[in-house]
Amino acid sequence: MPMRTKDDTKQDALFEATVKLVNEIGFAASSVSKIAKEAGISPATIYIYYKNKEDLLVSTYVEIKKNIGRAIQEDFDDTQPVRNILKHVWFRMFEYISQHPDYFQYTEQFANSPYQALVDKKEIEKFFDPVIHVLNRGIEQKIIKNVDFHILTAFVFYPILAISNARVCLDFELTDQSIETSFTMAWDAIRL
Amino acid sequence: MPMRTKDDTKQDALFEATVKLVNEIGFAASSVSKIAKEAGISPATIYIYYKNKEDLLVSTYVEIKKNIGRAIQEDFDDTQPVRNILKHVWFRMFEYISQHPDYFQYTEQFANSPYQALVDKKEIEKFFDPVIHVLNRGIEQKIIKNVDFHILTAFVFYPILAISNARVCLDFELTDQSIETSFTMAWDAIRL
Repeated sequence: MPMRTKDDTKQDALFEATVKLVNEIGFAASSVSKIAKEAGISPATIYIYYKNKEDLLVSTYVEIKKNIGRAIQEDFDDTQPVRNILKHVWFRMFEYISQHPDYFQYTEQFANSPYQALVDKKEIEKFFDPVIHVLNRGIEQKIIKNVDFHILTAFVFYPILAISNARVCLDFELTDQSIETSFTMAWDAIRL
Repeated sequence: MPMRTKDDTKQDALFEATVKLVNEIGFAASSVSKIAKEAGISPATIYIYYKNKEDLLVSTYVEIKKNIGRAIQEDFDDTQPVRNILKHVWFRMFEYISQHPDYFQYTEQFANSPYQALVDKKEIEKFFDPVIHVLNRGIEQKIIKNVDFHILTAFVFYPILAISNARVCLDFELTDQSIETSFTMAWDAIRL
């Protein structure tokens, strides 16, 4: 891994500050100067990296999506059977969401905000290319139901958010067994 | 249906204004005076109905949950087989979300906010008693997987939000066939 430069550290601080502030006070109230203060850097420095508030908010969203894509595709083995690959990806996703509920709170809010329109959908899709590819392989091999990718992900990955949210907000206790069952349910939803 | 009184009309305006403003500018920035202005009533009038901003925000959330419960349990027929009842409830939920994406945006934001802690979970659960009852019946009859209610709903109802969101934000087109398939997927996830 390359060494983190001083600039990387500033960008990391900015990223974390943006997520934290937006989750706490919302998009509208999160001004560049408040975010700068939270990150402990000067507002002028923000404008070295980002054109404006919109650019910062959209970039933060894209960065999270890129991180999710990278995390869930770690140790990705395209030679495995479709179910094994999806199980691996699903558990990595579960782990990532459990560790970063704040990132998901940000992306959920973002997806329901007007900023959503400013995102390059194709760029986001690229981060998930290997997963899209394995779902398509499952459809071709008649292992997975032949439905739109949006519907497949709604049943495979979206429930993880709901379960994780119940754990965080309602003190719902998850056992290893119930996580295992949850993956089985995701698989049962999409398999032919 | 009883006639709407002048007070009901004011409360309706207040409800709609709260949802609209919170969705636009977030919880933090939505002050009582801004909500009053949006609703076209005086801030003093708000305090006739609600103790404070927190009370107004929590009551709006509870009201939406109550409306969802009522909507999805319309024409509920407890004598039907479990799958038929759930299909009926699922389609009513789908219709409700499609017609009121703004209400769901509010509840999603709310569920991720500190206000969540102020809600009486038992009160919310009561609105969904008939659905909980039919899921339990399915578990007893060994038709439905014996897992926690939070996990069941994560696979039955939560994907509706994702699909509806894709439709609204990504211009994803839904056919009657793909909605029908989506219910089949929800059922396949939870059935034994």
